[in-house]
Amino acid sequence: MTSTPTLVPSFIKGTWWAPENPGKTTDVVDAATGEVIYQVSTEGLDTAGAIDYARTVGQQNLQKLTIHERALRIKHIAQYLTEHKQSLYDISFSTGATQRDHYIDVDGGIGTLFTFSSKGRRELPNSKVIIDGNIEVLSRDGSFIGEHIYTTLPGVAVEINAFNFPIWGMLEKFAPAFIAGMPTIVKPATPTGYVTEATVRLMLDSGLLPEGSLQLISGSARDLLDYLDYRDHIAFTGSAATAQVLRNHPHVQTKGVRFTAETDSLNAAILGPDALASTPEFDAFIKSVMVEITAKAGQKCTAVRRVIVPTGRSQEVIDALAAKVSERIRVGDPREEGVTMGSLASPEQKAEVAKAVDRLVAAGGEIAFQGEAPEGTSFFPVTVLKFADARTPEVHSVEAFGPVTSVLEYKSLNEAVELAAMGGGSLVASVCTHDDATAAQLTLGIAAHHGRVLVLDREDAKTSTGHGSPVPHLVHGGPGRAGGGEELGGVRAVKHYMQRTAIQGSPNKLTALTGVWHSGADAKTVTRAQVDAGEGVHPFRKSLAELEIGDQFASDLRTVTLGDITAFAHETGDMFYAHTDEEAATANPFFPRRVAHGYLLVSWAAGLFVDPAPGPVLANYGLENLRFITPVTYDDAIRVTLTAKKITPRVTDEYGEVAWDAVLHNQNDEIVATYDVLTLVAKTWPMPEVDEAN
Amino acid sequence: MTSTPTLVPSFIKGTWWAPENPGKTTDVVDAATGEVIYQVSTEGLDTAGAIDYARTVGQQNLQKLTIHERALRIKHIAQYLTEHKQSLYDISFSTGATQRDHYIDVDGGIGTLFTFSSKGRRELPNSKVIIDGNIEVLSRDGSFIGEHIYTTLPGVAVEINAFNFPIWGMLEKFAPAFIAGMPTIVKPATPTGYVTEATVRLMLDSGLLPEGSLQLISGSARDLLDYLDYRDHIAFTGSAATAQVLRNHPHVQTKGVRFTAETDSLNAAILGPDALASTPEFDAFIKSVMVEITAKAGQKCTAVRRVIVPTGRSQEVIDALAAKVSERIRVGDPREEGVTMGSLASPEQKAEVAKAVDRLVAAGGEIAFQGEAPEGTSFFPVTVLKFADARTPEVHSVEAFGPVTSVLEYKSLNEAVELAAMGGGSLVASVCTHDDATAAQLTLGIAAHHGRVLVLDREDAKTSTGHGSPVPHLVHGGPGRAGGGEELGGVRAVKHYMQRTAIQGSPNKLTALTGVWHSGADAKTVTRAQVDAGEGVHPFRKSLAELEIGDQFASDLRTVTLGDITAFAHETGDMFYAHTDEEAATANPFFPRRVAHGYLLVSWAAGLFVDPAPGPVLANYGLENLRFITPVTYDDAIRVTLTAKKITPRVTDEYGEVAWDAVLHNQNDEIVATYDVLTLVAKTWPMPEVDEAN
Repeated sequence: MTSTPTLVPSFIKGTWWAPENPGKTTDVVDAATGEVIYQVSTEGLDTAGAIDYARTVGQQNLQKLTIHERALRIKHIAQYLTEHKQSLYDISFSTGATQRDHYIDVDGGIGTLFTFSSKGRRELPNSKVIIDGNIEVLSRDGSFIGEHIYTTLPGVAVEINAFNFPIWGMLEKFAPAFIAGMPTIVKPATPTGYVTEATVRLMLDSGLLPEGSLQLISGSARDLLDYLDYRDHIAFTGSAATAQVLRNHPHVQTKGVRFTAETDSLNAAILGPDALASTPEFDAFIKSVMVEITAKAGQKCTAVRRVIVPTGRSQEVIDALAAKVSERIRVGDPREEGVTMGSLASPEQKAEVAKAVDRLVAAGGEIAFQGEAPEGTSFFPVTVLKFADARTPEVHSVEAFGPVTSVLEYKSLNEAVELAAMGGGSLVASVCTHDDATAAQLTLGIAAHHGRVLVLDREDAKTSTGHGSPVPHLVHGGPGRAGGGEELGGVRAVKHYMQRTAIQGSPNKLTALTGVWHSGADAKTVTRAQVDAGEGVHPFRKSLAELEIGDQFASDLRTVTLGDITAFAHETGDMFYAHTDEEAATANPFFPRRVAHGYLLVSWAAGLFVDPAPGPVLANYGLENLRFITPVTYDDAIRVTLTAKKITPRVTDEYGEVAWDAVLHNQNDEIVATYDVLTLVAKTWPMPEVDEAN
Repeated sequence: MTSTPTLVPSFIKGTWWAPENPGKTTDVVDAATGEVIYQVSTEGLDTAGAIDYARTVGQQNLQKLTIHERALRIKHIAQYLTEHKQSLYDISFSTGATQRDHYIDVDGGIGTLFTFSSKGRRELPNSKVIIDGNIEVLSRDGSFIGEHIYTTLPGVAVEINAFNFPIWGMLEKFAPAFIAGMPTIVKPATPTGYVTEATVRLMLDSGLLPEGSLQLISGSARDLLDYLDYRDHIAFTGSAATAQVLRNHPHVQTKGVRFTAETDSLNAAILGPDALASTPEFDAFIKSVMVEITAKAGQKCTAVRRVIVPTGRSQEVIDALAAKVSERIRVGDPREEGVTMGSLASPEQKAEVAKAVDRLVAAGGEIAFQGEAPEGTSFFPVTVLKFADARTPEVHSVEAFGPVTSVLEYKSLNEAVELAAMGGGSLVASVCTHDDATAAQLTLGIAAHHGRVLVLDREDAKTSTGHGSPVPHLVHGGPGRAGGGEELGGVRAVKHYMQRTAIQGSPNKLTALTGVWHSGADAKTVTRAQVDAGEGVHPFRKSLAELEIGDQFASDLRTVTLGDITAFAHETGDMFYAHTDEEAATANPFFPRRVAHGYLLVSWAAGLFVDPAPGPVLANYGLENLRFITPVTYDDAIRVTLTAKKITPRVTDEYGEVAWDAVLHNQNDEIVATYDVLTLVAKTWPMPEVDEAN
């Protein structure tokens, strides 16, 4: 805060920068007081240099880290920001936001970092290449196979953000790009960009950002887009009009710049016919709509703009909403005690909202309720309109980006679906019903028009994260009017900053490219006899420091007798007829006669491959993709081949995961079963004391 | 074939249609003879009506079928086309294509249908909603969860295809749209659209197409795009210039029409330094380049346009290529015996190719080899250029869409990567090397610039499907110049015609929406005691006709003794110290003392849940996602809860798959293990005789 407006600096090519001759500057005002608190200018900014710096220095430094190492940095950045979040609250009041709004922007942004960090380490490999989906065998003999990989886009991730969430908006895009290995240039919206600047400063102060991984443009991005091409990515959040301008940029049109937009939309909340005034659903619905039109003074792209209720029930809903708003909402300077809704972000925003309300009224909307609001340049009262004609085009297309919503009535569930779809594609809708069939009809009917649908009822009303809150685990974005983009969604977001490429070749070559052993590739085999004779090391005796993919153990054959099957049936209690009744087993379409239990086979396989003495293999924590291919009947024999397939050292522990490819064969070399054995293996053996710090 | 040109009809709104007053018509010529064989005109075509018909009749009829039912139709259509493929070969010679080219277009197209049909049924659910990824638990008590679903886009899939593959081009887009439930309007390229028309006619004759699921525009699509919006999808294959015009259409720009383009690109083939003249890699490389520039007379968007070889080796490569072309290639009318390369598609195409070669020569290219070609309006000789300066911009941007390629030299692997990337984004590249490190450096270096990379060496040279052949299992498309789109890729392609939506709610509601039981949702539980007392039916006694998701069996507790663990160790041979050595087990960071084998737990669980007598549960064919959560030590007890989670009746068998959610608890109600048990269950019990026809 300052009484002499200072220029908000940019951070470009590794240094803080402000123009020596700012030329024409833009004022930034305190939203609640109207005071000019900052100015911005990017006169003379070296945009081409910033892009080049990202593509070279930024890319190089990020590529020195694995995906898990990048993800761990994100966690540490989140911890650093948590320690300093009071300073972010303090500065954020000037945006018109209340303390409760700060929790969304500051804590929500930091929480998004934590989630991405955790998911990145749990759900992605600790390498630089992500395998997507299954191997496709493309030749009969298995010598030619294909699969898909993701690798880092070789350019820069440009973020262009909206004014309403200056911190969350940056972090939710930055984290996945960073984990993917792409450097970011962030361009926040001018009215609240000083909050982003303060956050970037903290992130730099933390010392955790590799050089070149983050740059900031405070003010106009100027000709930045003129230097982008298909290697680069633009993620935009804001108005549909600005999205349109960006999408139409020649480099997006002809140079293949990846472009994703998340624009505000006319999100619906649908009240089910069963949600009568006495039900928990009705209360949850009213509370949800109240929250969604007043949080951030309704300046959320996910706010509820259309309240769609059963025919004849709009007045009831308006009355309940008015009562709830009157009870809970006090509009004012967010720094004041007791204020629950702050101001719009600027006088310009207030004028925009007023104009939109006028358009809605001119189109036939009636102001059914209007709350109180103090005088002041940017305050706006809660405003609820109702429309006699639910199909009035304007109510489905004109957005008042403030504490404003409209109530519409539907005559049938089909009509409710049609009305929701008239928004032309939305970020989110709520469906409020306790009835399964109603929930399914409404949700599946509107799903293809929405990026997210929240089903609200008595069972989740208390625990729901809310209609308006994108969670990092789930995608955010929507078709049509909502921009057609997709953000968040857990590790899906990381992949947005990577290129999916099909790779084809021999198992050996695909092993070499991915660092994951592929069936059919060369292996370094030791047999039980070799191990026993001291002529080979069992792979279970190798720590992560010694183990390599392709290290393989091949067991001897072991014969399964009828007595073994019978004994296993009795000991486990699994007396299923296929194992115990010769006649019934023979009649089964899949079995020749009595067969061994699948569980017997995998249990014996462990007996055949295991190396029993204490060693670096610490535990078997699971099994994946087990398929029984050929039945094993008595007097058949089985053997197992176990191959180190995927090695994932943990960045925070003294051990890591090893996935072993297990294949059971019978005495005729037919494949009996295939699966992956999941183990924890020490990085070195003996292990040092485990560090509990992380 | 006709001597009086007839109009190629369109198939619109359920009937064959041609304009009554064609107005200005476009001639279609036989590519080899130059004779005018057809005309096209769409004067007066009701484009808006066609779209409306697809969105209503087409959508309704496709939505009557499940994903598996649609996929099975695709198989039957493929079978019908196979029976009639000679008629498609016969008509295709007029496009200038040889019989070998027909195999790519006709058999390749039909094969794509078979692959999609098979993958659709194996990898997608037999329903209308596809779940994407894992459940996300969003509240501590599990009452609020989220996940992602795909549902059918509610509009029309418009295909705009290139002239080179009139059948494959249609079918590779039609199949995934159809399986997704979207009706298609196909607009083939005019020069070869009569082949598409013949194929559509066969598909309609088969009686297998639901009404409204396929329409055909033979000729200009006129104002078709003016009626599309975010519900619709355009898949374009063709030139970058046309892609640009389409991408710039106002409805793509502002109405959110989904648009994907696959455009020809300047694909590279890189020869590794190890692939010396005497190696199998060198031979494979030369043969591959020869095939890729002569198949379809080089009119393939995947053809090799840039041959990138180690410094000093271009002449060696050119000589080998010239020898191979001279030996194998005879250009002429494709109907003639012995002809191995036909004509370009039209005189216009020939003029375009000649112009492009002139531009390459003007930029510094030298014609190093040119093959023979007969006189005639559309024949073009194999032409190999070489460039002294490998960084000449034109060689990386000017495409001669015929049997033309250019040879360039690189000085280092890094430079090879840079040169390949100078194509500005390509569909495919080949990397020819037997060296693992070279393969990894080149492939991972160029991956982000490509949609597909083929690693060619002695191990896959004989079995490779080839540089130029997109396979339905793997994605086809590429960034930048290649259009930025993605087609094929197995079931990924189906999802392109669906909207991904995050859904949030209680376990009960997400169960109701998806038809898949979610942990925490209501269940209909029977216990062992109830089953034994005849007071409840064990779910294993229910056929698919009776079984419902949420049917649950809850076992009794069974205590694990040290004797049990020891016995299991001896019987299976799994003497791992955690089960047999008290001191070592206690020292392990994850175990309290000796613990039961994970395999013991799942084997006993089967004993606890199984209902042994013959019945509708036919077999346990596998296990998924097994995770051991809490160790079980001796004197602990376990119980299992088994719940019918996902039921997938097969459309071609008298049984289907049932996935059961299995959870093991200990005596303290802690979760011991979770997994899915995969079984085959009869549709009715007793089963009818199995029909082997499908």
